[in-house]
Amino acid sequence: MAGAALRVAGRQLSQHSGSGVPILLRQMFEPKSCTYTYLLGDRESREAILIDPVLETAPRDAQLVKELGLRLLYAVNTHCHADHITGSGLLRSLLPGCQSVISRLSGAQADLHIEDGDSIHFGRFKASLLLIYSPLSFPFPGCAKTLYHSVHEKIFTLPGDCLIYPAHDYRGLTVSTVEEERTLNPRLTLSCEEFVKVMDNLNLPKPQQIDFAVPANMRCGIQTPPS
Amino acid sequence: MAGAALRVAGRQLSQHSGSGVPILLRQMFEPKSCTYTYLLGDRESREAILIDPVLETAPRDAQLVKELGLRLLYAVNTHCHADHITGSGLLRSLLPGCQSVISRLSGAQADLHIEDGDSIHFGRFKASLLLIYSPLSFPFPGCAKTLYHSVHEKIFTLPGDCLIYPAHDYRGLTVSTVEEERTLNPRLTLSCEEFVKVMDNLNLPKPQQIDFAVPANMRCGIQTPPS
Repeated sequence: MAGAALRVAGRQLSQHSGSGVPILLRQMFEPKSCTYTYLLGDRESREAILIDPVLETAPRDAQLVKELGLRLLYAVNTHCHADHITGSGLLRSLLPGCQSVISRLSGAQADLHIEDGDSIHFGRFKASLLLIYSPLSFPFPGCAKTLYHSVHEKIFTLPGDCLIYPAHDYRGLTVSTVEEERTLNPRLTLSCEEFVKVMDNLNLPKPQQIDFAVPANMRCGIQTPPS
Repeated sequence: MAGAALRVAGRQLSQHSGSGVPILLRQMFEPKSCTYTYLLGDRESREAILIDPVLETAPRDAQLVKELGLRLLYAVNTHCHADHITGSGLLRSLLPGCQSVISRLSGAQADLHIEDGDSIHFGRFKASLLLIYSPLSFPFPGCAKTLYHSVHEKIFTLPGDCLIYPAHDYRGLTVSTVEEERTLNPRLTLSCEEFVKVMDNLNLPKPQQIDFAVPANMRCGIQTPPS
């Protein structure tokens, strides 16, 4: 497994719903796993993608897609989740034409596999995969160092006012910026050496749903999970 | 008690954090009462306001205000809440110079009372109070009718692409638009007569924290609640 971020580019990115603004962005929350799901759409072509849908809230997401008159092309998973079952399998059934997408490196099944730097297109926009190696993926001492350099080289080199929308948040914060993370993030402002020390001593509890979520998510890209 | 909405106006309203965009908007979530708190600031003057802060998350809000280098002028309550204790009292202690604000009609104590149509200013922006009479305030048959007309006359007359940020949401949706509410809201698309019938038969459960939250909120604008 490897963590990943999706960078969305286009003429203008805005949460504004004004008809003059070409992109539509909706942030949605799933409270059990504190996961944020994102709906991105092109107002003109009505093509849209969902990023990190959750099984329990997939019907809500499908309803919103329909209500807004959008056509869902892709349900994208940034990685094979350990804390919830993805909604991509169910969305493929609810919204025919929708394809599941995940990084090839995840090893999970999906209609479409993408690799670092690959983009998926919807209307005039594209979402590009930035692979960020996670310490969970490679549990050996070098992993935190790789994570540190991934974030510093792939995220912190973006413009300071670039918005960062989280995949998870447990404090109720919905958005941040590259500048804020670069200057205020308590871990990422450490030196690489200090960061590795902190990360190697986190002793994080095992994700609550990992035993059934990961096996389910390895298959969910191509089938609806049993209810 | 009367419900209220705050309409924020200025040169440009955007959740973008770009230095070229003059307003800063941050949406935050409190999971126990499903309350959204909003931080609004002027990037130039660094003056800011908080709308509907919650007691439990007031320290988080104060930290964000400090981290972003803002000066909090007002902690505004859109009404006297029945489901949580406001964070405005605590914020006055944590961030000296911050004043609590509430509608005069609420009957609650505060540093500053405002009335329908009044505005509070922060930098180049202003937030205006739109009083929307709530059925909770006047539990007699005419109230749902008043609510219906308030929303139709004060909210649905705004431009269709005007963003509506909710005070509460129990489905994980973070934003909507005037057009969506006008055309898709299952209750507000009813005729006034049908709406009154639905609202009069809701039999809503009593808000969980009402017995202690309302008395506390009547005083919280001018004092820190006991911990």
